[in-house]
Amino acid sequence: MTHWIGGMGIIVLSVAIMPILGIGGMQLFVAEMPGITPDKLHPRITQTAKRLWLIYVGLTFAETILLMFGGMDLFNALCHSFATMATGGFSTENESVSAFSPYIQYVIIVFMFMAGTNFTLHYLGLHRRFREIWKNEEFRYYTLFTAAFAVVITFMLFLNNGQSFEKSFRDATFQVVSIVTTTGFVTADYLIWPGYIWIFIFLLMFIGGSAGSTGGGIKVARQILLLKNSFLEFKRMVHPQAVIPVRFNGKAVSQEILYLVMAFFLFYILIFFAGTFAMVLLGLDFDTAIGATIATLGNIGPGIGGVGPVENYSELHTGAKWISSFLMLLGRLELFTVLILFAPSFWRK
Amino acid sequence: MTHWIGGMGIIVLSVAIMPILGIGGMQLFVAEMPGITPDKLHPRITQTAKRLWLIYVGLTFAETILLMFGGMDLFNALCHSFATMATGGFSTENESVSAFSPYIQYVIIVFMFMAGTNFTLHYLGLHRRFREIWKNEEFRYYTLFTAAFAVVITFMLFLNNGQSFEKSFRDATFQVVSIVTTTGFVTADYLIWPGYIWIFIFLLMFIGGSAGSTGGGIKVARQILLLKNSFLEFKRMVHPQAVIPVRFNGKAVSQEILYLVMAFFLFYILIFFAGTFAMVLLGLDFDTAIGATIATLGNIGPGIGGVGPVENYSELHTGAKWISSFLMLLGRLELFTVLILFAPSFWRK
Repeated sequence: MTHWIGGMGIIVLSVAIMPILGIGGMQLFVAEMPGITPDKLHPRITQTAKRLWLIYVGLTFAETILLMFGGMDLFNALCHSFATMATGGFSTENESVSAFSPYIQYVIIVFMFMAGTNFTLHYLGLHRRFREIWKNEEFRYYTLFTAAFAVVITFMLFLNNGQSFEKSFRDATFQVVSIVTTTGFVTADYLIWPGYIWIFIFLLMFIGGSAGSTGGGIKVARQILLLKNSFLEFKRMVHPQAVIPVRFNGKAVSQEILYLVMAFFLFYILIFFAGTFAMVLLGLDFDTAIGATIATLGNIGPGIGGVGPVENYSELHTGAKWISSFLMLLGRLELFTVLILFAPSFWRK
Repeated sequence: MTHWIGGMGIIVLSVAIMPILGIGGMQLFVAEMPGITPDKLHPRITQTAKRLWLIYVGLTFAETILLMFGGMDLFNALCHSFATMATGGFSTENESVSAFSPYIQYVIIVFMFMAGTNFTLHYLGLHRRFREIWKNEEFRYYTLFTAAFAVVITFMLFLNNGQSFEKSFRDATFQVVSIVTTTGFVTADYLIWPGYIWIFIFLLMFIGGSAGSTGGGIKVARQILLLKNSFLEFKRMVHPQAVIPVRFNGKAVSQEILYLVMAFFLFYILIFFAGTFAMVLLGLDFDTAIGATIATLGNIGPGIGGVGPVENYSELHTGAKWISSFLMLLGRLELFTVLILFAPSFWRK
């Protein structure tokens, strides 16, 4: 239940409040989307919130029904729906979702993917404006990117460990979607896969869900913007006098937004390094320190090393637990809203 | 000899050519320094180069004499001086500098530190303008930062493994200076130190020498600028209307330079991730992949994992050797000068 209530808060935070605060360039990804201009998705926060919550409740309800259809009892179905829609990822079972049937795993894959999608797109979907959804650049990258990783890992698993193709596909897709959306459910221990396979999973931990979803992390939209800008850097070097803006959803991105996104990314990396450093100082081994830091900062759950998919954080040093808790909070609230509390100038005002 | 000639090239590149090209904000750290304005350090590249080379030759000569004074023969003294001044780090001995006396190790510490210093500061030093040297913000941070790490690790080593205080101090300082300046000489295997000690060494691999030195890596000046800007971000959030510039060496830094520095850092991190990813795909274990990537990209030499201070790169997969070679080239030439060759727009011109 705390999962689910938290997810409600995050949707409003990320669709209605963060963009107003202008944190990490959020205004670009969410508010300037087609469909959320004043005349379309009702602009007032309470109105927006109500509509998004209806979608949220509706999707939770749909998932619960589909899970029960696969043989889950109401309690388990509700718990897993809550954990999916909020991209929270706690299961009632110790073995997480691997304790359930393939059908249930597929249902959860689909709903994790939807929970990691910008919720304003679900609103467009309800109104059958599918063309607009596909026009959304972040959604397109999010979809293609997730699919590409799932396919590559499927083949690697299939060729490597002699599982059936269906099982390889299911394990690969489940793990990829779960990590990208920062849900954290697991159906396979990716750490016993060869290093060249789980490195994909590890990289995915740095991506994050879509802006305006319940997913955490850096967010797909920011990654796109940073990558595009990096490539344009070369064009700018060749033509130093030309003004070459980054385009996102067909519009030129202002220098200010770009700066905010870069600053967000820098802070994220800085905190990742500082967190890993602190964890190692507390006696964690290197891999566990990296894993625990990125998995908590990105709100994922399972990391690498000693906090892998079949482990948990109970064995960690008390200090490392405090740091993990703080990192979860930081990541969940898009860094700045928490960090600003430590700025003297904030209190002086 | 190739070390030493390469070092000559790098000095001119970093003091005279990079600033003109404006790569990664270099113009700020080197060209705008007090002492290199047109009337002071002669502006024409050939003149500048000659003066810097005289300093370079002079320091090499001084080190050679001091090493011979400690009982080294001329050949070894020259080889180690070449490797020190160019921050190259290849020794004539397999055990690197641990094969020599404490006196020789201390001499090499001092000269590594000088090789990692902006060479225009040596020029000021020759003219006894010591106040101006200490006014240089990068030099101040570089000195204090290196000293702080050396002191902390000294005490950790002393308390941890029962060595004499002198040996702890020497091992700590040598390793810290060698890694920060990206020289790569070693006198102790830091990987057999406990994790909470060598994590300091690992972090240092991301720092790099000073701008305008023979050292590689991200460079201290860029780190300062990024950190300062990050902290100002909070002030900017509290006072969204205020213009709050970053100050470096007492002057406000333009938004353009700041952007270049951020872009450089982003590329560096992106390449670090891509390199690690590629190495793992080629079958390297995770720690070795991270270690080989940062140690080659930063032109350091010794990394972590299977490419630690008492190992070398000969055991790596052929593909990993190619990648390492490319990363060394990228890092040495400040990324953009190499990467631009892969930009279609560069060739279209």
